[in-house]
Amino acid sequence: MPTIVVDVMPKAELLDPQGKAVTGALSRLGVDAFSSVRIGKRFELTVEGEVDDQVLEAARKVADEILSNSVIEDVISVEVVA
Amino acid sequence: MPTIVVDVMPKAELLDPQGKAVTGALSRLGVDAFSSVRIGKRFELTVEGEVDDQVLEAARKVADEILSNSVIEDVISVEVVA
Repeated sequence: MPTIVVDVMPKAELLDPQGKAVTGALSRLGVDAFSSVRIGKRFELTVEGEVDDQVLEAARKVADEILSNSVIEDVISVEVVA
Repeated sequence: MPTIVVDVMPKAELLDPQGKAVTGALSRLGVDAFSSVRIGKRFELTVEGEVDDQVLEAARKVADEILSNSVIEDVISVEVVA
């Protein structure tokens, strides 16, 4: 069954406390390859049947209005995966 | 600066209570295009300098050992994004 993947990340200009905590933990653990970590969400929406424009439009609407909080987050992609 | 994206999802055979809640909410709101929703995490690791094999290997290790809980989650991808 096709899946639509929606990626949501905290807005770039906002502090991401979860990400900051992981960045600090990595540095304490001696992993110095990464200068910062940001943590967002990945939603997998399973579609029964085919993905047409209407379904994709519905996914975009749901991503903007329900799956993300536009005050603090950006929807960075809505993509169909096989 | 290059970014490595790590996607982590709850294992397929486990219940995903967050996803179940969203699935129920969508159906109550009259959105019937999606039969199920699963919710995972998306990590963006910023790399200073170039991404070579060693950095990618470090990212895979961090993804497996720190960013995910292998009892309940799968790392589904570790990818370099421009």
